[in-house]
Amino acid sequence: MRVIIIGGVAAGMSAAAKLKRLKPETEVVVYEKTDIVSFGACGLPYFVGGFFDDEKNMIARSPEKFRESGIELFTNHEVLEVDFDKKIVKIKDLENSKEFTDSYDKLMIATGASAIIPHIENVNNLENVHTLKSMYDGTKIKEILSNEKINKVSIIGAGFIGLETVEAMKNLGKEVTLIQMGDRVLQEVFDKEITDLLEEELRSNGVELHLNTTVTKLLGDKKVKKVVTDKEEIDTDLVIIATGVRPNTRFLQNTNIKMLKNGAIIVDEYGKTSVDCVYSAGDCATVKNKITGEDSYIPLATTANKLGRIVGENLAGENNSYQGSLSSSCIKVINMESARVGLSEEECIRKNMNYKAKFISDMNQTNYYPGREKIYVKLIYNKETKVIIGGQVCGYKDAVQRANVLACAIFNQMTTEQLGMLDLCYAPPFARTWDVLNVAGNVCK
Amino acid sequence: MRVIIIGGVAAGMSAAAKLKRLKPETEVVVYEKTDIVSFGACGLPYFVGGFFDDEKNMIARSPEKFRESGIELFTNHEVLEVDFDKKIVKIKDLENSKEFTDSYDKLMIATGASAIIPHIENVNNLENVHTLKSMYDGTKIKEILSNEKINKVSIIGAGFIGLETVEAMKNLGKEVTLIQMGDRVLQEVFDKEITDLLEEELRSNGVELHLNTTVTKLLGDKKVKKVVTDKEEIDTDLVIIATGVRPNTRFLQNTNIKMLKNGAIIVDEYGKTSVDCVYSAGDCATVKNKITGEDSYIPLATTANKLGRIVGENLAGENNSYQGSLSSSCIKVINMESARVGLSEEECIRKNMNYKAKFISDMNQTNYYPGREKIYVKLIYNKETKVIIGGQVCGYKDAVQRANVLACAIFNQMTTEQLGMLDLCYAPPFARTWDVLNVAGNVCK
Repeated sequence: MRVIIIGGVAAGMSAAAKLKRLKPETEVVVYEKTDIVSFGACGLPYFVGGFFDDEKNMIARSPEKFRESGIELFTNHEVLEVDFDKKIVKIKDLENSKEFTDSYDKLMIATGASAIIPHIENVNNLENVHTLKSMYDGTKIKEILSNEKINKVSIIGAGFIGLETVEAMKNLGKEVTLIQMGDRVLQEVFDKEITDLLEEELRSNGVELHLNTTVTKLLGDKKVKKVVTDKEEIDTDLVIIATGVRPNTRFLQNTNIKMLKNGAIIVDEYGKTSVDCVYSAGDCATVKNKITGEDSYIPLATTANKLGRIVGENLAGENNSYQGSLSSSCIKVINMESARVGLSEEECIRKNMNYKAKFISDMNQTNYYPGREKIYVKLIYNKETKVIIGGQVCGYKDAVQRANVLACAIFNQMTTEQLGMLDLCYAPPFARTWDVLNVAGNVCK
Repeated sequence: MRVIIIGGVAAGMSAAAKLKRLKPETEVVVYEKTDIVSFGACGLPYFVGGFFDDEKNMIARSPEKFRESGIELFTNHEVLEVDFDKKIVKIKDLENSKEFTDSYDKLMIATGASAIIPHIENVNNLENVHTLKSMYDGTKIKEILSNEKINKVSIIGAGFIGLETVEAMKNLGKEVTLIQMGDRVLQEVFDKEITDLLEEELRSNGVELHLNTTVTKLLGDKKVKKVVTDKEEIDTDLVIIATGVRPNTRFLQNTNIKMLKNGAIIVDEYGKTSVDCVYSAGDCATVKNKITGEDSYIPLATTANKLGRIVGENLAGENNSYQGSLSSSCIKVINMESARVGLSEEECIRKNMNYKAKFISDMNQTNYYPGREKIYVKLIYNKETKVIIGGQVCGYKDAVQRANVLACAIFNQMTTEQLGMLDLCYAPPFARTWDVLNVAGNVCK
């Protein structure tokens, strides 16, 4: 059996490695467009922010290592087309521009996503304007930042990458302006109670935050000098664009494979697409939402790795399903940490669900042990059954891990009452006798 | 209706407050032996260790506050006897030694536990020898420690209080010797893999650790000078005894109320004892173990508060049950944190259960973000069903909160496979894409 995997990042290489381990006799062929594989883009903000300098830290395993395991790995090879009927892919070797075809018994599409470049005048014409998605982006931005004269950094987009880049630039002592089209940072992730806290954290740490602001134009002379918005002009030495990602599935646009409107390939819980013998996973594909059962686009490294492994198992003949995504995600915003799991209240409103929500603030531990910090919890739950369907935790300490407790509670359809009485660990340095999660559960009636 | 509550600490005052709030017309009478109520003994090690100086921080609410809410609260009143048939308690006013009786419709016993004084020669005859259980113990030890000449501190017993007192004494810069009769520290709490780590943490921080060592005698001249063990003599300026607690139920020894061998009053999940109209909760009572269903003695503040509240609700006419204890507990040992939930492997062996266990070590987060630390997870699970029945997490960061995820998993009878694929939050400062809990779940097959 010959399996072709298009894309050698998280999902693709997880699948390739798992498949080869389970069924060494399978021909596992990977075509990767860039010259690296197993690249963890999550590290990029911290790389450009000087938290570390060796780019190899972002690479889980080298092409050589994969090849040693028997995987036929072709880097700098772009797949141009797929013929699902004939089970053939057309590939271009980017080093010599030669094109050729290859045929498969089973196919996995794991092409990931690309940064969206918004419609901004001169966005492609000026230097020192970059997205932060690829290793090339990272090394290029780091090189630019090595020039001490680069001081004013404008970040367009206040999603995960935008905000992590804020921390990165603050770490380098830069003047940071964050420009967001919407009225809140991280508006797709957190509800307003939480983003209010995060925005306060940004502002109190000297970040210039421009909400409800649209960038219309960039100005400069070879190098970017000004960001022009619908409100003002902002002096800048570097622009980092972080306005979201789009699945890399345009090469499939003439096929009949089912996709969401944004181009994400729809897969079932086994990683199967609508096309026979074709699997997909990672940032180019959907994932089943555990709570709603919907095919959702949740492009996260965690899900890509998990689904990738499952697809690898299923390509090897197993029949394993993914138990569902909880949209679990988290971020450090300067000194604050914040995490969300399950549905947000905004999502519940959009879906017209019969829900209730409560937001509480408390302290993370006893008053007498050093290091006490405020902590905030929002719970979203079914109004009738009291089953928890969403949670958001924010604070300076232990917020993310507490959200993981909520992830586990949501996965198991626990009620707020059960959470209120859950036997959580207590000692003075770590919690109060009634932990903030107990308190949250108890007030949600 | 007249309700008498014996004991005004965690469980008793939780019940009293809840009952009075739910049914203000009830006569709620509390007899407390000491002159304070709502005292959190958990703070004592940190109080004597100089982490804070205001003893009021350990008191959740003052007697006056409780009285304002309409609770009839008598401090310095010891209950000497109970006649369950006549529904009468005999009380001694400790201020004037007068005895009197009072009658109840319903009774709650919440007398807590006392520190065990082991059979050691001269343990009661020398100064600077103390347990650390009461506010008096705390202020007395703090006073002794205010003398700069007190430098060598011997702690007898390596349970929670013993080890927290080690941290406290290190915080004061004292020379600390920890003497434990058993072969491991915290042997009732953690399995050997974890206690090995904690013992290493103690030793590498200069704590003199004497395991398998029995103290036979204290020597001194008015003040203690030496601890004599079955192996050697240890110079000392202060001895702190932390060899466990015993339920304060001796005043019931001539009644027919059902107790465990150690004197803990057996209660059902509603907090009812074997005697009609009599409830109990807290360190003087048992609690239902969620996993085994057994009546277990787990004297922890968390359980006391939860059961206390439930008893308050049930005294008010509700019919609420406790969902069960997971024996969840945690401790900071110098710079390490460690937590356990569910059953330990040792308990599984003792109960002859059909279990498997795995211990893994990993890192708490990505390699490229500062502050990465080792973390260790032990999972104990049903050999057939793979349902998780116990977990222990130890490390320098985020170990306790990860154990809370396991508490939630155990409560919900999750399998190791489900944990392996649980959608936990990831960002570089907080986790690896496969969190250590996922990894632990995945290796437990």
